[in-house]
Amino acid sequence: MKVIQSLQEMQQTILDEKKKGYTVGFVPTMGFLHEGHLSLVERAKKENDLVVMSIFVNPLQFGPNEDFDRYPRNFERDHRLAEQQGVDLLFYPSITAMYPQEMTTEMRAKQRVDVLCGKHRPGHFDGVVTVVMKLFQIVQPTKAYFGMKDAQQVAVIDGLITDYHLPIELIPCPIIREEDGLAKSSRNVNLSEVERKEASHIYQALQRGKELINLGERNSETIKQNLLNYLAENISGEVEYLEILSYPQLREVTEIQNQIIIAVAVKYSTTRLIDNVIITEA
Amino acid sequence: MKVIQSLQEMQQTILDEKKKGYTVGFVPTMGFLHEGHLSLVERAKKENDLVVMSIFVNPLQFGPNEDFDRYPRNFERDHRLAEQQGVDLLFYPSITAMYPQEMTTEMRAKQRVDVLCGKHRPGHFDGVVTVVMKLFQIVQPTKAYFGMKDAQQVAVIDGLITDYHLPIELIPCPIIREEDGLAKSSRNVNLSEVERKEASHIYQALQRGKELINLGERNSETIKQNLLNYLAENISGEVEYLEILSYPQLREVTEIQNQIIIAVAVKYSTTRLIDNVIITEA
Repeated sequence: MKVIQSLQEMQQTILDEKKKGYTVGFVPTMGFLHEGHLSLVERAKKENDLVVMSIFVNPLQFGPNEDFDRYPRNFERDHRLAEQQGVDLLFYPSITAMYPQEMTTEMRAKQRVDVLCGKHRPGHFDGVVTVVMKLFQIVQPTKAYFGMKDAQQVAVIDGLITDYHLPIELIPCPIIREEDGLAKSSRNVNLSEVERKEASHIYQALQRGKELINLGERNSETIKQNLLNYLAENISGEVEYLEILSYPQLREVTEIQNQIIIAVAVKYSTTRLIDNVIITEA
Repeated sequence: MKVIQSLQEMQQTILDEKKKGYTVGFVPTMGFLHEGHLSLVERAKKENDLVVMSIFVNPLQFGPNEDFDRYPRNFERDHRLAEQQGVDLLFYPSITAMYPQEMTTEMRAKQRVDVLCGKHRPGHFDGVVTVVMKLFQIVQPTKAYFGMKDAQQVAVIDGLITDYHLPIELIPCPIIREEDGLAKSSRNVNLSEVERKEASHIYQALQRGKELINLGERNSETIKQNLLNYLAENISGEVEYLEILSYPQLREVTEIQNQIIIAVAVKYSTTRLIDNVIITEA
């Protein structure tokens, strides 16, 4: 595995590989890799000649009071895991390389962002579309792999690709979970022991929502209240949101029909967890 | 020469050609071709294996009271001229193809736009960067050719390419002029006979500015007043702006030094002309 820090070198390497007719699978990450990321690499390896992973904690997508400084980092460990998993090129640029000077243009996410995380993290998705557009131009992937844990991110990037006709296929991949159901996340290490233990109830709540729908419940408000009560009884964290929306349009629904997402965010003392389930009505 | 209207076909054709190792020169236009455009094609042919021209009158870069409907169009003539000049692929998409649905993101030009045309055409350069980003993703050129008549556009696109690390070389090309010095423009056909006749004084004014600097004048306000007086005496059109700025930064200068632009816009009854000269102090 080759580590590349220079944007120019990364871009030139890809241009050369693509001239050979190679397909490029791209797994953009913020590092501190877990099985979720590695599952993306596994899939990318099956479907492409070359797999590029990027590790870049993007300051632009963190708000002033968010956890940019606290975001966990461990490049040595990431390097080892990426290499073991068979990543071909590990792109690891500096902040100065990615943002060499004040940008002359700005990119904003307009749709699919006034709900869920977007509502609670103003500017977050502006930062996401900006960095993803940059990474896409540098890596020029054939296919790009994103985990469904950030379901809203997947919806927003789907919009970005459509907006600018990017010649890139978006591959959303399933959420990878701990044994007790907690969605794997780089932020899980910031949980206290008690928080970590009870956090599996976030997953349990989503499963409960799924069961209610399976049992015939169609009123989204009823389901929402049921899950909120369950969470209030079982976790100490603050529920930032629990929403039931159409997917991927992310519009409010009063009645369950077609494809919906139940998505939840919980705020703990030093960290914030998100999880979701997509349900397609038969 | 092949005419392509479908975005998908255009994109796929380019991907196939690039696999052969071909370089792609791109000349984006709004059609109604004149020698200015053709000089871009000529240069592109010298420097690339394949030359793509696009013809697309982009509604997004016209303001509500601007001349989108009046903008001259003649596809048959353009087709003939492009073919004669040796364009390989003529990309001619519909508005619906370029803007199939409301965009989920938006792109804004922030710097280099509060002067010259940008100041008088709010939103214009937002429309320019949006459509240019789209065209760049569809055509994926090695080099892109723009005329220096729209010097501010060149500066803004230079910023766009830097912002997103686009693997595209920007090639600014000199202004092509009529015999009497008037800069060639698709909009010249909208001038009345009298307007057309006196319009050469716009060029004369810019030449006068150049001479003043050659003669040692360094105060930009003095030069500006001199040229404004000259224009007031010689043309009936309204001077929308006459500015002396650093180039390509487009910042105000009180004293002439390094590289500057003298740029002017004149409003006639039904049309608006722009012209400029770049002066590099020895």
